[in-house]
Amino acid sequence: TSQAVVGVVSLIYDHHRRGLTDKLIEIQHDSSDVKILATLHIHLDHDNCLEIISVSGLSSDIKKFYSHLKSVKGLKHVSLTPATRGKNIL
Amino acid sequence: TSQAVVGVVSLIYDHHRRGLTDKLIEIQHDSSDVKILATLHIHLDHDNCLEIISVSGLSSDIKKFYSHLKSVKGLKHVSLTPATRGKNIL
Amino acid sequence: TSQAVVGVVSLIYDHHRRGLTDKLIEIQHDSSDVKILATLHIHLDHDNCLEIISVSGLSSDIKKFYSHLKSVKGLKHVSLTPATRGKNIL
Amino acid sequence: TSQAVVGVVSLIYDHHRRGLTDKLIEIQHDSSDVKILATLHIHLDHDNCLEIISVSGLSSDIKKFYSHLKSVKGLKHVSLTPATRGKNIL
Repeated sequence: TSQAVVGVVSLIYDHHRRGLTDKLIEIQHDSSDVKILATLHIHLDHDNCLEIISVSGLSSDIKKFYSHLKSVKGLKHVSLTPATRGKNIL
Repeated sequence: TSQAVVGVVSLIYDHHRRGLTDKLIEIQHDSSDVKILATLHIHLDHDNCLEIISVSGLSSDIKKFYSHLKSVKGLKHVSLTPATRGKNIL
Repeated sequence: TSQAVVGVVSLIYDHHRRGLTDKLIEIQHDSSDVKILATLHIHLDHDNCLEIISVSGLSSDIKKFYSHLKSVKGLKHVSLTPATRGKNIL
Repeated sequence: TSQAVVGVVSLIYDHHRRGLTDKLIEIQHDSSDVKILATLHIHLDHDNCLEIISVSGLSSDIKKFYSHLKSVKGLKHVSLTPATRGKNIL
């Protein structure tokens, strides 16, 4: 069975791609199954953003959320780090 | 004369307003006079975002950056906290 | 009567002061009346940290939390920005 | 040869372990080879913290920084996500 975990999703993208940031924020607000703890946004240079999204929820729901983000066109990098799992932490 | 400071800009807005997030990110990437250290984004509820932008630069340039953000239509809250000033810190 | 608000506390301190960071984290974990949304920590230089703590809760409880933080010895800067108030936001 | 990358280090730890947070902040301020962009700290519950450290630098230096953090006693979780590599991004 799926367990509660904390996950960290890292994205890199060019913010000039029109609609991309709107799309990413929409996905985050619409994700009712996972709880988004906070998002850190770093302006790497004039074009590129690093966005780090911390979430908690069931492992299976975090994977779905990650798949949803991954499907957005124009991302240069997407990765998911399952930071932990199991009832001993959360 | 203007001195180097660290400033914290806090914004609250409804991310459903189309184009608003694109506009905010554009302003942040285009601000060449201030250095944006990092931006923290919290999804308060389905509609509202809290965005906290930390910057360093000359006091006068941070005020210009803040005015620029304030002029964006649709923000529910904008405030600037000059976190410090003076050569004893930076 | 006190209303639900979002607040942003900004701190600057020298992390070399032994025990100071432990103390700040202790206060944040022990604050049962306010909800700490997330904390952003920026290493300004070899000595100085900028710490931005975002909280939600009753206005009166956030003020108490802020007073608690302010009482910590060795902080170079402490400020509170009440980012919003009122039922139209939260 | 080693290339410039952006990396994301995720840590989970119990902040009650005396000295642990001081140690983690010390390592971050003393890391002269990597540039720490920002650190996001989430209070998961009364005991546990999630700390997400974003860094840029040479791949080899980020790995050294990560090894340094990993050697700290008492961490429940440590992971490194190399968010990207190569001159096309940075």
